Order: sequence, then structure tokens, then C-alpha cells
Amino acid sequence: MLSVAASRLGFRTVIFEPGADCPASHVADRHIQAAYSDEDALRDFGQSVDVITYEFENIPTSALDLLEDLAPVRPGREALRVSQDRMTEKEFLSGLGLTTAPFAAVDDAASLARALDQIGTPSILKTRRFGYDGKGQARLRSPEDAETALADMAGAPSVLEGFVEFSHEVSVIAARGTDGSVACFDPGENVHKDGILSTTTLPARLSTAQRTDAVLLAGRILNALDYVGVMGVELFVTAKGLVVNEIAPRVHNSGHWTQQGCSVDQFEQHIRAVAGWPLGDGGRYADVVMENLIGEDMDRVPDLARDPAVSLHLYGKAEVKPGRKMGHANRVIGPASRG
Amino acid sequence: MLSVAASRLGFRTVIFEPGADCPASHVADRHIQAAYSDEDALRDFGQSVDVITYEFENIPTSALDLLEDLAPVRPGREALRVSQDRMTEKEFLSGLGLTTAPFAAVDDAASLARALDQIGTPSILKTRRFGYDGKGQARLRSPEDAETALADMAGAPSVLEGFVEFSHEVSVIAARGTDGSVACFDPGENVHKDGILSTTTLPARLSTAQRTDAVLLAGRILNALDYVGVMGVELFVTAKGLVVNEIAPRVHNSGHWTQQGCSVDQFEQHIRAVAGWPLGDGGRYADVVMENLIGEDMDRVPDLARDPAVSLHLYGKAEVKPGRKMGHANRVIGPASRG
Repeated sequence: MLSVAASRLGFRTVIFEPGADCPASHVADRHIQAAYSDEDALRDFGQSVDVITYEFENIPTSALDLLEDLAPVRPGREALRVSQDRMTEKEFLSGLGLTTAPFAAVDDAASLARALDQIGTPSILKTRRFGYDGKGQARLRSPEDAETALADMAGAPSVLEGFVEFSHEVSVIAARGTDGSVACFDPGENVHKDGILSTTTLPARLSTAQRTDAVLLAGRILNALDYVGVMGVELFVTAKGLVVNEIAPRVHNSGHWTQQGCSVDQFEQHIRAVAGWPLGDGGRYADVVMENLIGEDMDRVPDLARDPAVSLHLYGKAEVKPGRKMGHANRVIGPASRG
Repeated sequence: MLSVAASRLGFRTVIFEPGADCPASHVADRHIQAAYSDEDALRDFGQSVDVITYEFENIPTSALDLLEDLAPVRPGREALRVSQDRMTEKEFLSGLGLTTAPFAAVDDAASLARALDQIGTPSILKTRRFGYDGKGQARLRSPEDAETALADMAGAPSVLEGFVEFSHEVSVIAARGTDGSVACFDPGENVHKDGILSTTTLPARLSTAQRTDAVLLAGRILNALDYVGVMGVELFVTAKGLVVNEIAPRVHNSGHWTQQGCSVDQFEQHIRAVAGWPLGDGGRYADVVMENLIGEDMDRVPDLARDPAVSLHLYGKAEVKPGRKMGHANRVIGPASRG
């Protein structure tokens, strides 16, 4: 979807992706299929483009070292460093004075015991790196779950997060340009099922003050990282205010709704940012519900295709698997209203 | 834009195009660069796809003969036969009982003199084939212009068209599926400059009766051709009713506005039709002005990129030339109103 957005602005894209036949390769000018460790391929890639971006934050440091000398990588290293590690991310957010869930580093049984003393249960143990869509996580309902949870981490450095009492989750899709200008889309309200985003609804249930808060804290995060590009900021709405759940240094699933209802969607916004173009303003002219199509939801495509209010986006993935995001459906509800 | 729409539904595209580095090749899975006379390349193309469509109506008959045996070509031959020749098209439309400008075939000075007797001036002499964007046309203000106009045709079979007194031009972007279902987008109002479409505005100035008329006559044309795909139908609005100016058997420049303000745009609608999917219903949720960016209009891109109401679509053409369509800008004016 980034490649398509780039083409809409007259840019050509080259995709670097180890996998064969990836969806992006179907809509790109060129696909370099190689491992992140293949230095010749990386060099070829870096020399054939004007700017490099990504939609996957676990790119090996060695690849970034090589690419950075050939073309600007946006968003930059600091954003990747912070968001690749849950512990670093939480420390960064706390350092900005933002509220997160209580957290503590866990490396072994002793540090888990100390963390449980401090945070209590219910809580969640998560690997510091490489987690997504609920993977690499274990819930602790009581201290007795400690051993099993630690075993689930398989020795990986982890972080224990306290449970946050929240009424709902929203996310802000925010962008920052090379000139430091910031633009946010209206926050959307997220519903997850089995740890995977199910729907995002616009407008979100937020007071005017909460809406302002959400936008201001997103801006603070982007500025602190000297960020260039689109970022997804997930927030818990609690009685005591907004709590930052996590940040993602890329276009975000909860921003897919922008394809319907905004003049400039999150994908184009990201391309504009990394290309040094002026940002779109994030204005919204429609109420939208985005629904992920996961695994067997694909059976509903014939019906969704008949629904006049639905815009379908299918990713062209070769195989349907349970829990796999196969596409999404944006349903336009009406002209933009205030949540 | 068709290729992008296809990718959105999970389809892959193969582009057959004689030119190198064409914009569609930047967003397609494969580009076969070969002449329409290259039978091996045509066979390779036909064997690698499930269905064939086009956005250029002057494909040689010999190429179609070969391809039709390998995969369905949609829209079919009859639509191409009719629309490739202005005279055949006018006869077809008249045969359906629709009103066109008065017309007569012109092959030489004698037939032009007869046509002028019948139709008078002001009138326009046009080549029967290969005309577009005002090319292959000569205006006759008086019978004295006959010789110059005929010379402009360079011996090509032509048609003299009488001048139609109209208040404005609208076009209907209509679609018909493989199951015979028809869906129309709301008519847009077109303004041309120097024979090239400049803007399309939604909604068009039309009475409810005219709007119904426009949709009904488009449906009649599609059904008569057993058409599959999207068609552009240009109509003059006159005191005596709607006059059909011309039809185009493809997605149409005056339908580009559908990218903003419709759940399913004309490009996806065309892909749905030729793929045998259910059609989108054509519903519109925003008022939009589409403006073509022609030649030096590209100098305005930095300003347009800053305009929060504008969605930019640039075609990635290598070179700016006067009169060349380089992109378009869709400006969302507000929620859908009635014209």
C-alpha cells in the first residue's frame, strides 16, 4: 500500500524483501529478493533509490549500517532503536513524562520475582524484542503463573507490564515531515480479538480534552525522536487520563481507515514525509469503520464485495492461514461527525 | 490506475505495452514490452492471464483475433468495433433511438459538399478513426473552410458533425457486469479547454428528470453492446434534452473524481466487471472537483500538495510536454449534495 501511494505521486519503488512473490513486489518497479545479510544486494538496493523506508521494524542493525551510507533511512535509527525493544521504549516514554503501564525488566526467575513484588498481578510478561499480534506474550493471573510464563519466554530478555484498567483503546496516526512539521489523523477506536486488531472506528469516543491530549503527546514523541514518517501511537483511555500502550515506527493497521475519508491517507502521508514533501493535514470527511479480514474472514469477501458502503482491500497473499491478516474492509458510515 | 485497483482486490496484472518504462509497468507484476504485431509476445501474454482488458481502444484487429482465443477480452469486440469509428458509433447510437449531433460521412470534396448542404455550418470535420483530445478535427465556420478542413484530414475517411447548441456537457460513467447488471456513477459536469478535458465537477447541474435520462440511456448503450466493463458516455445538455456526444469503451478521464468520494472507484469498478465480480453501486459520499494537470500545470504541484482538500494523482510520465496529461487533482468540496 506504500508502493501504491508512492506511484500515485509519480514515484517508483524498489522493494527489498527476502521472501519470494511478496505482495509489494506485485505493485513495485523492482523487487530485490535477498537476505538482510546479503551485502551485495543491499548495496545494489541502496544505490538504486533516493530514500529508504520500511514497514517492518526488526531490520538487522548491520543492514541499516550499510544502507545509511547510501541513502537516507527514514524514520531514522533512533526510532528503530527505541521501538525494537519494549523496555527501551517504555523508558523513553516515561522519560518524556508520559504515562505507561508499570513495567520492569525480567531476565530470570529472580528478576521476575522482584518485578512481581513491584507490579503484582494481573500482569503480562512480554519478550523485549520481536513480539507482534499477541505473539511472545504470557499473562500472569497470579504469582503462581510465574514459572510457566518465564518458560514461554524461552530465555529471551523480557519485560513485565502491569495491567491497566482502561475503558477502551484508541490510536493516533501521526506524521512528521523533514521540516519538523507534524500532522495527526483523528484518533480511531480499536477493538482487538485474540490479541489481533479487529476493528478501528472513526470517530473514537473521546472528550475534546482527551482528543487534544492524544494529539499533543503524539507530537511530543515524534519531536523527541526527530522522527520523519508516519507513526502509530496506541493509547489506553483510563479514568486518570491517557496511557501510552506502544508506538510503532511505521504505517499502522489502525490507520488503514484513512484510505476512505481522508484526502491524503496514512500511506501517502508516510511517502510525503520520507520524500520531503509537505504533509497532508489529516482532515477527515467521513465516518469509517475499518475491519481486518483475518484467516477465514476471507469467506465473507463475496458478501462484502456486494455491500455498497464497503471498500475492500485484499493483500494478494498466496495462502489463507488462521490468524493471518489477508485484507481489510473500510465501511463508510456517513459524513464526518464528532465523536 | 487499473493495475493499482486490481492489486487492491488481490489480483496481479501483466501489462502489454509497446513503449518502454510505461507508468503501468511501475505498478504491475510484469510488463511485456512488444509490438502489437509480435505474435509470440501476444501469445505469451494471453497465456499468462485469466482475463484481458484495455484502456486504449485502437488495438489492431489482428492482435485481438489472436488474444480472443487465449482469454476472454472484456469489453468485447462489438464495443471496440463501434467506438473505433465515429461514423459507426453515430449510426449505432441513432439506431438505438438516441439523439446525436447531425452527421454525414465524408470521403472527398464531393461528399463534403453534400454533407455541408445537409448539415450546414458551423460544423466540425473529424477523422473517423484515431482521434482523441481534439486531434484530427477541423472546424468549419462557413462553407469556404471546406477545402482547408478536408486537407487537414489528409485523405482519412471522415465525418462531418453539425454544431449542437448546448448549455453544458456531462458524462455518465457506467458499468455492466458479466451477469448483465448495470451500475452508474452520478453524472459529472465537464469543462474542456483547447479540446482537452479540464475539470469534472460533482454534482453536475441536471434536473432529476435529466439525471434519470442520462442513466437510462447509458444503460441502453451497455445492454445493446452486451458490454462488460466501464464505459464513459459524454452527453450535451440542450434545451431539447440530452444529446450523446461520444462513448469510450474504457475507464474515462471524466470518471477520475470517483477516486475520492466513492467506496468503489471507476478503476475498481472496471476490474470488478471484467473479473466477474459484483459491481459497486456507484454511490457517492462527497462533492468533488477533478482537475486535470496538463503540461505546465505540473508547476502547481507544490502548491496543490499543500492544499488540505486536494488528493493528488501523478502519472509518473518521464517528460512534461504541452498538452500532455501529467496527473490530476481531486478536490473534496464537502459531503455529497444534490446538484
